[in-house]
Amino acid sequence: MQHRHEYLINGKRESGISPFDRGFAYGDGVFRTLAIRRGQLRTWTAHLKRLQTDCNALGIVCPSEELLLGDISKLAGDSSECAIKIVVTRGEGERGYAVPALAQPTRVVIKTALPQYPEQHYSSGVSLFLCQTRLGHQPRLAGIKHLNRLENVLARMEWVDTQVVDGLMLDTDGHVIECTMSNVFMRSGDTLITPDLSKCGVAGVTRQRIIDTAPELGYRAVVRPITLSELMDADEVVICNSLYGVWQVNHLASHAWPFGVLAAKLREQLSKEDDAVFL
Amino acid sequence: MQHRHEYLINGKRESGISPFDRGFAYGDGVFRTLAIRRGQLRTWTAHLKRLQTDCNALGIVCPSEELLLGDISKLAGDSSECAIKIVVTRGEGERGYAVPALAQPTRVVIKTALPQYPEQHYSSGVSLFLCQTRLGHQPRLAGIKHLNRLENVLARMEWVDTQVVDGLMLDTDGHVIECTMSNVFMRSGDTLITPDLSKCGVAGVTRQRIIDTAPELGYRAVVRPITLSELMDADEVVICNSLYGVWQVNHLASHAWPFGVLAAKLREQLSKEDDAVFL
Repeated sequence: MQHRHEYLINGKRESGISPFDRGFAYGDGVFRTLAIRRGQLRTWTAHLKRLQTDCNALGIVCPSEELLLGDISKLAGDSSECAIKIVVTRGEGERGYAVPALAQPTRVVIKTALPQYPEQHYSSGVSLFLCQTRLGHQPRLAGIKHLNRLENVLARMEWVDTQVVDGLMLDTDGHVIECTMSNVFMRSGDTLITPDLSKCGVAGVTRQRIIDTAPELGYRAVVRPITLSELMDADEVVICNSLYGVWQVNHLASHAWPFGVLAAKLREQLSKEDDAVFL
Repeated sequence: MQHRHEYLINGKRESGISPFDRGFAYGDGVFRTLAIRRGQLRTWTAHLKRLQTDCNALGIVCPSEELLLGDISKLAGDSSECAIKIVVTRGEGERGYAVPALAQPTRVVIKTALPQYPEQHYSSGVSLFLCQTRLGHQPRLAGIKHLNRLENVLARMEWVDTQVVDGLMLDTDGHVIECTMSNVFMRSGDTLITPDLSKCGVAGVTRQRIIDTAPELGYRAVVRPITLSELMDADEVVICNSLYGVWQVNHLASHAWPFGVLAAKLREQLSKEDDAVFL
């Protein structure tokens, strides 16, 4: 397969990853995806911090900021607009689950084109699919953006309608958790509520930024379990991630919300606070 | 890292796997580990069948038996004793969870040395650690030997005592499920009981062979949920996988069982029935 993108493995233009890499063998690693726009690496500080936290949760040594920024700069080159994916694995090991005493983490930095999202997603909102695939509870891994993502893969396989931008996933108890590639917020009056992710789900950087900035917009931010019927009854629903930002949700399966302005307000607020790094 | 082993990626001696391979990106694939002994590929038919079933469960096209056996023969060469690991992923894709319409599965066949197990494990039995890491429930993935194995990795990190051969894992409800690299059976009178794996766990080939052969030895095989206290009260406990066969369990943490002969009987019975293929 031809890719219009490039990657560095431990800083080098290697052709590939060893099958003995534990990222391949067991999904024993973590990742982040972020954007370069107008030559700036967006929300870098927050992504680096989350990468470090996630590595730490799995006992993986996180590569230094210097190494990561070096790789990103080298790959980005003259590209002022691209997507960067960082993968850090526990490194190579022999066969078997035991972690080698001398495991050296593998870092992979990948450059791809930024996805081109239709302008209507911003101006008119988006539709979500309601996935049948439920997220299992695993408190030890909850919140971490790790490489064990089969649940998201199975959920994403459930729809083919290109008008649907993402799929809402519930957990095995029926609580709303996230979308396959997004976090979710609902507004009820002046309260912004996002699902508790202590049992499953990925705690994204944009989710945390919205929680942190909510008071600036006059909202109270609350993290707690949310039922599907609560979500349906919400005044507004938005989804977010680090590539597209924030989108207003108009439809979830056959349910519709009146068009609101929460996503636009959040986008404007977040654009003021980006802890970007110039490359 | 130097490896005393070799591998083929899609039948070729490639240096590595693309970071765009979904096996690396998401753990979107399955694997099997089996032994070559005295030049025979042991329990091949059962492993191939399970590989096909697991691929099918994830919607991955399983490579043909001809391709797989070709790779295995090429790698094994003159080795009459080695371990073979087969990994099949969904193949390469662009960034994002959506499965490419034209995804071509990636097959990786890896040869390593057979682990050298101490003779005492067979003659005197083994000790197990009781892991704190619990297996989450995910019925969509239960039983499948897929590449999302972070739970096993975390569990394996819990002990360093080299006298302990494996760790027993419970699920989030506290039921006995499996060990990090083994399945588990308990004997109660003339009944052999192995945990129900409909919510989590890996349904190994040796587990199925024991279930199938139990009546030959005068046992009734039962698959059902098992509590930890039931396991403690069992007459005998054994663990199994495709590399070491069957081991008698003497100790689980501070609990001890009197030494029994179930493992030896099962090993003898299984050795008669091996659906091996001569390479």
